[in-house]
Amino acid sequence: MRVLITTIPFAEIDKQPLELLEMSGAEVVINPMGRALKETDLLELISDVDVLIAGTELITERVLEKASHLKLISRVGIGLDSVDLLAARQRGITVCYTPNAPSPAVAELTIGLMIDLLRKVQISNFCMHKGEWYRYLGRRLSEVTVGIIGVGRIGSRVIGHLAGFECSRILVNDVDASEKLPHHPTCTIEWVSKDTIYSEADIISIHVPLTNKTRDLITADHISLMRRGTLLVNTARGGIVNEQDLFDALQSGHLGGAAIDVFGEEPYDGKLTALDQCLLTAHMGSMSVDCRARMEIEATEEAVRFMSGSALQSTVPEEEYDNQRLA
Amino acid sequence: MRVLITTIPFAEIDKQPLELLEMSGAEVVINPMGRALKETDLLELISDVDVLIAGTELITERVLEKASHLKLISRVGIGLDSVDLLAARQRGITVCYTPNAPSPAVAELTIGLMIDLLRKVQISNFCMHKGEWYRYLGRRLSEVTVGIIGVGRIGSRVIGHLAGFECSRILVNDVDASEKLPHHPTCTIEWVSKDTIYSEADIISIHVPLTNKTRDLITADHISLMRRGTLLVNTARGGIVNEQDLFDALQSGHLGGAAIDVFGEEPYDGKLTALDQCLLTAHMGSMSVDCRARMEIEATEEAVRFMSGSALQSTVPEEEYDNQRLA
Repeated sequence: MRVLITTIPFAEIDKQPLELLEMSGAEVVINPMGRALKETDLLELISDVDVLIAGTELITERVLEKASHLKLISRVGIGLDSVDLLAARQRGITVCYTPNAPSPAVAELTIGLMIDLLRKVQISNFCMHKGEWYRYLGRRLSEVTVGIIGVGRIGSRVIGHLAGFECSRILVNDVDASEKLPHHPTCTIEWVSKDTIYSEADIISIHVPLTNKTRDLITADHISLMRRGTLLVNTARGGIVNEQDLFDALQSGHLGGAAIDVFGEEPYDGKLTALDQCLLTAHMGSMSVDCRARMEIEATEEAVRFMSGSALQSTVPEEEYDNQRLA
Repeated sequence: MRVLITTIPFAEIDKQPLELLEMSGAEVVINPMGRALKETDLLELISDVDVLIAGTELITERVLEKASHLKLISRVGIGLDSVDLLAARQRGITVCYTPNAPSPAVAELTIGLMIDLLRKVQISNFCMHKGEWYRYLGRRLSEVTVGIIGVGRIGSRVIGHLAGFECSRILVNDVDASEKLPHHPTCTIEWVSKDTIYSEADIISIHVPLTNKTRDLITADHISLMRRGTLLVNTARGGIVNEQDLFDALQSGHLGGAAIDVFGEEPYDGKLTALDQCLLTAHMGSMSVDCRARMEIEATEEAVRFMSGSALQSTVPEEEYDNQRLA
């Protein structure tokens, strides 16, 4: 069978995924562009592929129409906003993913970005590299009200870390009302409306998937509920925070700063790059050696299971299809 | 009595220190330069001052000779490397400080800087702001061996935070052999030699005071013991890590990165500013609203106690004088 690996990087540190594929006897093609694929790239590459080990590139109905041999999409990661699940199902294409592997790395990066914003680390770093010395006065996590939107795998880990910093007040909400309120003995966690988070939190971090319910979850209307100087972290998905509205709110000074790891279109080189108060990273939430290796190995193991006719362990659950059905 | 406040900022957010001084009836002069004072500045300002509420500016014997009215130096902060304690004692000048107040803010910033270095946040931020997208692969705190030199007030707090990130192996040492090995149920903490820390840790953070014993604690010789790619954090004091040797090791790529908050001469605009792989902040370890307020209030309360003839609560302990005696 022919396996196309589009995700970048792949097996850069740990070679095990490639060894697994080699042992399976599959014919393996690794992303020949060496960068995130556009729809047109994928259209060119997909026609004779049986199994796709996928990154976050868009796998649209148009791509799937061209993918006449495709039987499995194995996503390296958790987000499924890039995959047209319903179109895949119509064509009998199975989709699996690695929902647990990225969480620790995303949660830890989120805490680092929160401290950076609260203490103006990246602003000071820019100043210092220009020869300007200014001692910015910041706040500790225990001094602020933190708002967490999304308390699933990643959000609940973020809350656990925050408790270690004696964070005294954490406001939470989720688009999925079935998520449970996390408990921690040392801090007060309150389930409130999103509007309460917007109006009362000093720093807000987003940990929901991108679905039809969460696209443009935060626009100018919501930002206007936030107090001047509020800080925003997005390590979830681009598209959840409206980028133009974020830009306007940062430029006007209404938002005090933002740390953005994910973008509507990646690779990103849009106008947020013009703002020093916007800390930007290149979709690196899951990019720790251990989490990345686990994601790649888990996604590859699913591919190998599929090719050998074994049962899969992480097919995408029905609610992900439901999410895409609610247009 | 005449009180000179040199530390910058002062009472910027919380006005209480100024109110305390006002109630005491003191004549208050706030740093008229609006920046860190040089020795020559202080020589001009000190002659009629009774009480100095001091930042980290150098209070040399030359300054003290000119300070014929000076009776108390109340340091806003913990470090005493800036004060010639022995010369002060000879002139009957009492010195007090605020040893506990800065710890939480310094420890929290240190964790943020560690995550930044491990995940290449500041490198990615520079790239993104130049329109370059590259997904750097980093490591989590639980994947690396962390070396902590100095396990007093701040170092032990850093270790507590690291435990919350499931950091599995922490190597510690201190110049003060009487410091106790901190304990944590969830991680292995080993007291080892400094050379073992240099050769085995992936990331090293320094939490000792600057004394005659710790000046140039880390030079090219010590860096040469470190493996290629080792990361270094200094939120303690400039002068502990030799700046020229640090520059050389970063430029050659032997050190993978550094986060430096403190410098031999502040304000700093030296050659480290030329290196993207050196994350630089402007002595902002203690600069959180709560810690800064606590430091300013505690230092001011000592000054007010002194002026009213009450007993002081935080005079500098004898070992700090001993530290300076060992030349």
